This record gives sequence, structure tokens and C-alpha cells, in this order.
Amino acid sequence: MAKYSIGLDFGTLSGRALLLNLETGEELASAVCDYPHGVMDREMPWGEKLPPDWALQHPEDYLEVLYRTIPAVLKESGVPPEDIVGVGTDFTACTALPVRKDGVPLCFLPEFAQNPHAYVKLWKHHAAQDKADRITALARLRGEAWLQDYGGRVSSEWMFPKLWQLAEEAPELYGAMYRFVEAADWIVWQLTGNETCSACSAGYKAFWNQCSGYPAPDFFKALGPKMEHAAEKLGKVISPLGERAGGVTAEMAHRTGLREGTAVSVGNVDAHVCVPAAGISGPGKLLAILGTSTCHMVLGTEGKRVPGVCGMVKDGILPGYFGFEAGQSCVGDLFSWFLNACLPASCREEAFARGKSLHEYLREKAQKLKPGESGLLALDWWNGNRSILTDGDLTGLLLGMTLQTRPEELYRALIEATAYGTRILVENYREHGVPVEEFVAAGGISRKDPMTMQIYADVLNMPVLIVGTHQGSAFGSALFGAVAAGRENGGFSHILEAAERLGKRGNTVYDPIPEHTAVYDRLYGEYKQLHDYFGRGGSNVMKRLKALSREQKQKEQNFQP
Amino acid sequence: MAKYSIGLDFGTLSGRALLLNLETGEELASAVCDYPHGVMDREMPWGEKLPPDWALQHPEDYLEVLYRTIPAVLKESGVPPEDIVGVGTDFTACTALPVRKDGVPLCFLPEFAQNPHAYVKLWKHHAAQDKADRITALARLRGEAWLQDYGGRVSSEWMFPKLWQLAEEAPELYGAMYRFVEAADWIVWQLTGNETCSACSAGYKAFWNQCSGYPAPDFFKALGPKMEHAAEKLGKVISPLGERAGGVTAEMAHRTGLREGTAVSVGNVDAHVCVPAAGISGPGKLLAILGTSTCHMVLGTEGKRVPGVCGMVKDGILPGYFGFEAGQSCVGDLFSWFLNACLPASCREEAFARGKSLHEYLREKAQKLKPGESGLLALDWWNGNRSILTDGDLTGLLLGMTLQTRPEELYRALIEATAYGTRILVENYREHGVPVEEFVAAGGISRKDPMTMQIYADVLNMPVLIVGTHQGSAFGSALFGAVAAGRENGGFSHILEAAERLGKRGNTVYDPIPEHTAVYDRLYGEYKQLHDYFGRGGSNVMKRLKALSREQKQKEQNFQP
Repeated sequence: MAKYSIGLDFGTLSGRALLLNLETGEELASAVCDYPHGVMDREMPWGEKLPPDWALQHPEDYLEVLYRTIPAVLKESGVPPEDIVGVGTDFTACTALPVRKDGVPLCFLPEFAQNPHAYVKLWKHHAAQDKADRITALARLRGEAWLQDYGGRVSSEWMFPKLWQLAEEAPELYGAMYRFVEAADWIVWQLTGNETCSACSAGYKAFWNQCSGYPAPDFFKALGPKMEHAAEKLGKVISPLGERAGGVTAEMAHRTGLREGTAVSVGNVDAHVCVPAAGISGPGKLLAILGTSTCHMVLGTEGKRVPGVCGMVKDGILPGYFGFEAGQSCVGDLFSWFLNACLPASCREEAFARGKSLHEYLREKAQKLKPGESGLLALDWWNGNRSILTDGDLTGLLLGMTLQTRPEELYRALIEATAYGTRILVENYREHGVPVEEFVAAGGISRKDPMTMQIYADVLNMPVLIVGTHQGSAFGSALFGAVAAGRENGGFSHILEAAERLGKRGNTVYDPIPEHTAVYDRLYGEYKQLHDYFGRGGSNVMKRLKALSREQKQKEQNFQP
Repeated sequence: MAKYSIGLDFGTLSGRALLLNLETGEELASAVCDYPHGVMDREMPWGEKLPPDWALQHPEDYLEVLYRTIPAVLKESGVPPEDIVGVGTDFTACTALPVRKDGVPLCFLPEFAQNPHAYVKLWKHHAAQDKADRITALARLRGEAWLQDYGGRVSSEWMFPKLWQLAEEAPELYGAMYRFVEAADWIVWQLTGNETCSACSAGYKAFWNQCSGYPAPDFFKALGPKMEHAAEKLGKVISPLGERAGGVTAEMAHRTGLREGTAVSVGNVDAHVCVPAAGISGPGKLLAILGTSTCHMVLGTEGKRVPGVCGMVKDGILPGYFGFEAGQSCVGDLFSWFLNACLPASCREEAFARGKSLHEYLREKAQKLKPGESGLLALDWWNGNRSILTDGDLTGLLLGMTLQTRPEELYRALIEATAYGTRILVENYREHGVPVEEFVAAGGISRKDPMTMQIYADVLNMPVLIVGTHQGSAFGSALFGAVAAGRENGGFSHILEAAERLGKRGNTVYDPIPEHTAVYDRLYGEYKQLHDYFGRGGSNVMKRLKALSREQKQKEQNFQP
């Protein structure tokens, strides 16, 4: 008799549940729940303005996802709860929140509810750039070995810069909190009542590694008195991926309709969990997940120091391999920005009149352009650069505009810029001994936007394969849930087995068009030159402008009563 | 008894007549006529597509301006034709057309009417950049002295590149034409029946000077056989400014309502003619005319070689002085591009709902921003760079965008970029010995857009004075018309006299705000660095992209049946 697993995927704007048949791999039911509070990056619900670069979430929203989507998929599929053998989860990361010893978020407590620091700091909270820079500088000075596993530079998106900001700006919260916990681990805590700490997020976001653990206490001491005991605020026991974190609690069973005691796997990161979902079970295949941002993962058999990767973690993606992660911090977000901030009314009206979505409408026009025809070139740094420059203070650039430049040309130039950014990452992996032989794409853009995928194939000069599920993260989480359940209960004994049995290699392939690749080679050369000039110190104008902007915004705030 | 003069101003999109009381300086009546064909830069009226960088006009439209606006101002003012003692005209330049010996444009002849080369090449026709570059290169090689009077570089907007393109691409027209004539001179020809050639346009646009005339025949010979006799296609007798070109013909009198024989002054250029209108009659005062593009003129007592000026012409603006001209080829045009190509529907709707024009709406939001607050910086080269880089193949750049960047921030950054571009020109004049002690602004933007004028004052760190007429060109032309009439007929004996008597120095002054100038000094420093990097060979990426774009567009055209 068939058994089932549920995968729960917590994204930037919504959470999703997927119910998977472990016999056939069929995706039986899925449900999505938008976060009621969304991303809080301008102000808090009570009207308090947030400084620039902040991005918060409300943990209530994550619980809402459990309460709404699990009952929905149970109902839609008609599968009885006793046949659901496992639950797996994945989350954006580093997305972390301060909690009490019992796991209750500090923002749920009346005394802290009006303090923005009591809420979840979302992955794209970039307000701790100064802290990230100081951690990088100190680690370099001390020759800390772990720094090289993270491309030689610390991102403001990671755990310790965020924790430091909290320690410095909200010492009362810092003192009151038991843990600064990854939302990935917190949701598992809510489901099972057990505190666990996933090897994936600890490894990729908090400098933890199997041999040496977190950075040594004297490193934290050297950061200053506020950070001396920082590592104590993080989980102590790190659990390998696919391990059973515990069983669903009675209360959660009651609220979700799951059976009490259903196996729940250790938390995972939304991107990494897609690798087995794509049927990848070994090295050489790079998986790119194209969403609001893009994450690029590849497995290797050897530990390699790759400059600018977000992390190299042994067993961090799949057991037995070194998992490499790199990322572009602004992809779908960039296209959305363009639609919201730059698309003229005339285009909107025409799209509406022709019954097209804005993306469809622009694509229809943009795909008629030849590579290079617009004369435009962009640097895709609207949200900083995560890889390989690891610098949140870099900003976007557009070049080549004339009075004849049209919206669809700007749109295509932004898409092309993200493709060049991807090629930089691929070449960087190769240059540093991590083979990339296949390019596999997942995420919304990979399925909805054939023009973009063709541009990627042309820019990379490699075929682009599209993963065969549009719910890669939830699919991967369901596989990990099945591993937590174990083979004896109808699940799997190992994630590699699950990946090979049920992973969804798709049938859609975009082959490069030689006439285009020749032109894109030239354009990529131009992109690379601008990338190095503005990103590697040729001109630090972007960083100076960002600093001036902060200075002026600060003044403005000081003027307010 | 009061006498009157009419000034006729032919701009990029429309022509205008102004009737001026020569006793009081009162602007009694004015009328505007939009060119029915506008600017033909995408296709011809019969549907033929134009290559990139073309910009044509139809000479019929200029006649239409005469037939509609002169009767309108006569009627509105009620002034009898016999009291109109003079007519002056000014035109965009270099705006030129091929004509027969009798002055009939070749595009009026059935055999040439379907050939785009038979029409007027508007000042912003940039398709002869390659010719301009070859003229520059040869002149440098031969050490031609005249080149230094034009900033050391030939613009694609000027006479000989345009003429060369015609010679090469339409030899049958080149053979058939008697003159390639400035529209400024052509309109005077139409009014008076006399062919004249204005010292202003010949001096600024065709390398003519009082001592040596046009470049020597052997220079043209060295350009190649097509250009050997090029100078013969231009007017031979050059007339000083304010001279009487002739009297209104009987036919023109009939069609316009003017009295036959009314004095018409020699043609002039729309920007230059504003100098006396602004009451400027000596050195040190820079007049900037802010319209679709900006023109900056200043008088000097000595001939100075200023790199990148568009021209230094003795007696070219006002008799007795060296007239220096520099220009920014894209100002109002840039703001219009932004509104048309980049302004999102949400802004349009909000502006409409609040009963504001788009500019008003954006200004209201943009003027709340502090200098530097947006983190944005732009290079204002959407239409190439006329001064001081003199390179039509440079293109626009925008830098500093984040996902939080809003439309009003982009709008303000574009305005600021044009202000930095102006400061580059001012500093360049000073560095090369041409004093600039006062900044006087004219043109639509100077009167309608206080925010922009305040930004200019802050960026320049100089008071900005606004000219007291919004019809500066037409006003200046009316003054020249009065000089052509002569004092004995109720006009003036000299343009300096007219400028001092009737010139309109305004009362509006924008003073720099010290808190802003400090920040703008830093931002200007950043602009200057990018200006030099992209404009002076640090990176030629813009030029390579433009070349690639041409190549790809060419391919496309070749594919068409």
C-alpha cells in the first residue's frame, strides 16, 4: 500500500505544502498560503518606520502556513493521515529570530512586541553590512581558516552579522533571548517540540563545520564584549540532513490534521533541498534556482577553496559530498522592480488591451531583439552582489541608453545581466577546480519564461535543462521527510536513494544558438570588465554613493520630531 | 510713433512669431505653429523605415509657420503692416537641406520626393558620425589650424559630415543640388528672394572664419573624390549678423500680410540670438538656454582655444567679441524620454487623480529628496556628448539603483546629471581663460521648473539668473530685425544698442544653498570621474556597444525583403 510524505517550503512571500506519493513520485496535492504580513521593509504594522536595508517577517505567518496548507493538502488528496509517514521542511536562510528557552519568539511577548529587533530578520535584511565587514576584516587579520570556506568574505545576510546587530542595538532583547534560531529550525521545533539545529544552515550561514564546530571563543572575544558569548546563542547539537528531528506533537496534530508522532526531518534550506528533487545525486551538475534571487549549487568530491562562493560545506547538501553554494541576490526581484518602478503606462495599457500579462507582453517584444541590438548593458546588483564579490553595498548599473531606448530593451538588458552574472559564477567554479558539466534550472522563472532560459543557454553556451517539477523545494522536503520516516515505514533509507528513485529530471532543454553565443561572448567580455572595475576596486563609486545616501537618510530621520 | 519688429524662431518641434514694440520692449503678440511632420526619425511619411540616428524634417513645415504665425500676430496686435519695420529669423543649426539654384528644395521635386536624403537633415541627425570622425582624423593629421577653434573635434551634427553623407549615399542628389543650405539661410531666401549666408551658422557649423574662409580646397581633396568640391555647395558671400538680407517679396507679402520690402535681417541660430535678448552685451556672463538640449554661450575679448567647445567664432554672436559656444545635446529630451519610456502607470494615475502634470507631480516628490539621498548618479549622454567630449557615440549611464529606487529618484538623478554636465562646461571655460562670472538661464525649463534651477544653482555654486522673457529666441530675432531696419526707420543702428535698450534681464534669481553645495561638490567629483573614465578612453565600452548595436540592426535590415 502506497505511503506519502508532505514537504513544507517557506519562501520569501509565502509558504507551500506538497503531498507526495512515495511509490510513484506523483504530486497529489499542494496548497499555498501568502504571509499575511509579507516582508516588512518600510515600516512595522504599528506604523514605525524602518531604517534602510531592513527586512523583517512575522513568525505568526509561518504558523499560519502550517494551519492552512497541511489541512488543505490532506483534504484535497483524500490521503488518510496514517499513510503520511513523514514531513520535511525547508526555509529561506539565513532567516533568524530571537526565542525563549521554550521556543516562543520574543515578538510574541507583550514586553517586546513593539521592538522591531524582536521579529524575524529575513535573509535579505542587509542592515548589518558594517558588522559583516568587521567580521571579515578580523577573520582575515587572524588568518581564520574557516573564512576560506565562505569565499573569503562574510555576507551581511548571514547569522553572526545579524546577531551582532541585535546585540548592539537591542541589548535587552539579546540578554532575554535563549537562542537566535534559524526559522528553518524554529518551524521544526514548533512541529515536534524538540530543538534541533540543521547541519545545512549551521554550515552555510554560521561558519559551523564538522571538524571544528563554530569559530573559536577567542575569535568572538576579539570582536568585542558584545559578541564574546555569541556562539552560546546558537544551537549546540548539529543534526545531519534527513535525520528524524522528532514526531509531530499532539497539539500540532490537532491543528494540522496530521497523526501525532509522524516523523519530521531536520530543517533544511529552500535552495539546497532542491538538489535531490532535481534528481541530482553526484558532482558536475549545477542546479540554479531562479526565483526572486538565484542560488547555484553543485556537489564536489574534493574540498576546494572557491573565492566568493557563499559556502562550501561537507555533507551540507547531500551526504558524502562537498556542497558548494553561490548566489545572485536579485533576479526575479529585479524584473519585478522594473515592472513596478519603470514600466510606462502605455505598455500596461497595451498589455491589458491584448489580454497579456506584463511579462508576456514584454517578452513578446523583447524576444524579437537580437543580442546586442539595444546597445544596453547592465550590472545586476540592485540588491548588492552575493557571489563572487560578496558585497551588499554594490548597486545596479545601466549603460548604453539613448533617446530611442525602449522599455522592452531595458527589460531584456536586465535579464541578460542576470545571465552574465550566472556565467561569472560558473566560470569561477571551473577556474577553481569544481567541474560544471551540466546546467539544470529550477524555480518559477525556469518554467514560465522560455525567453530568459534561451538567453541563459546562449550566454552560458551550455544546454539548460529544466527540472520536472515546479515545486522543487517542497518536493525535496518531502523526500527528506520520507528519509526521516525510514524505509521500514514506507520511506527511504538514504536521500541519495530517494533522489535517484523519485528525483524529477525534466524533458525540457534549451540548446544554445551559435549565432547568439558569438555575440554574447563579446557582451559577456564587456560585462566582466565593468564587473571587475566597479566590483573589485577599480572605482568604488557605488560604495561611496551608498554611504552618502545612508548619511543623508540619517539626517532626515534626525530631523523628524 | 512706435515702430515694431517681428522675430521668427524655428525650433525642433515648432515655429513661433513674436511681435515686439521697439519703443517699450513690450511683447505685443505671439503665435506658435507645430510642424505638421514633426521630427521624422523612425520612418518617412510614405512608410519607409529610417536607419538608426537619422532625424529629418520637411521644409514645407517651415513655410507653414510663416503663413500661419505672421498673420496671427498681425491680427492679434492690430499693428498695421507699415509699422513693422523689420523681420528677424533664427533656426536650429546645423539644420540643412539640398536646394536648386532657385532655392526650391529637392524634396519638392517629384523625381526626388521619395528620397529621404532630399529632406532637411535636422541638427540632431547623427548618422554621419563616421564622417565626422574621419574629418577630425584628417584635420589632426594635417594640423589644420581651424580645428582648434572647434574644440579639436568635429561633431556629426555639423555641416560637412552631413554633406558628405549625402554625397556618398545619394550622389544623384548631390549632383543635382546647387546648395546644401542652412535652413536659417533658406528661410531668409524664401522671405526675400535673396540667397545669403549667415556668419553665425557658417562660422559655428561650417568651419568658416573671417580671415581664411572655409578650409582650403586641398583639405577637401584629401577627404576623397566625393568631397573634393564640397565647399562649392555652400554659400560664397558671408553676411555679418544684423545686416539687411533684403526686403519681403511681393508674394511673401501677399501670403503673410507683411508690407512688401519690409527689411529682413540675415539668418541666425536660435541659441545665439538669445544673447542680446537676455541683455548681455559683453564678456563674463554665460547664457544657458535649457530646452530639448542646452546651449551655453559666452563672449570673450580674446581668442582662446577651449577644448571641446562647439565653436569659437569672431563676431559670431555679437560684433566685436569672440563668441564661444558649448552644448549639452540632451536635456529636456532626456526628461521627456524618462516620462515616456520609464514612468510607471501608478505615477501617471496618481498625477492625474491630483490634477497635476507629470512634471509637476514628479517635482513635488523629487524636491523633498536631499542631495545624495537616492544614491543615484547618471551620465547625461542619451544623445551623445556634444561638449566637451564631442562624441555622438557616447550613451547614457545610470548607477546606484537598488530595489528601493523610486521613479522620482531616477527623475531627479537625470536632472542632476545635466547640472553636473553644465558644471563641466563652466569649469572648462574657466580653465582655458574664458571668464564665467554670472550664470544666466533661458528656455522653457528655466521658467517652468524652479526645482531644476535650484539644483543648477546648488551644483554650480553660483546664483542662477532667469531671463525676463520666455521667448528669448524670437525676442532676439526681433532685435536683429530692428537692426536690419536701421535707426532711420525706427530700428537700431547696432545690436549692442538694441541689447542694452531692450534686452530682458529678469528679476528671478536662484541662490545656492550652502548645505546642498557641499554635498553636490562630492557628487560632482564622482560624476567627473565617471565622465573621464567613460568619455576619455578609460573604458570605451559605450562606443563598442553602439558599434555592435549598429552591426546587429544592419543585419536585421538585410534580412528584410
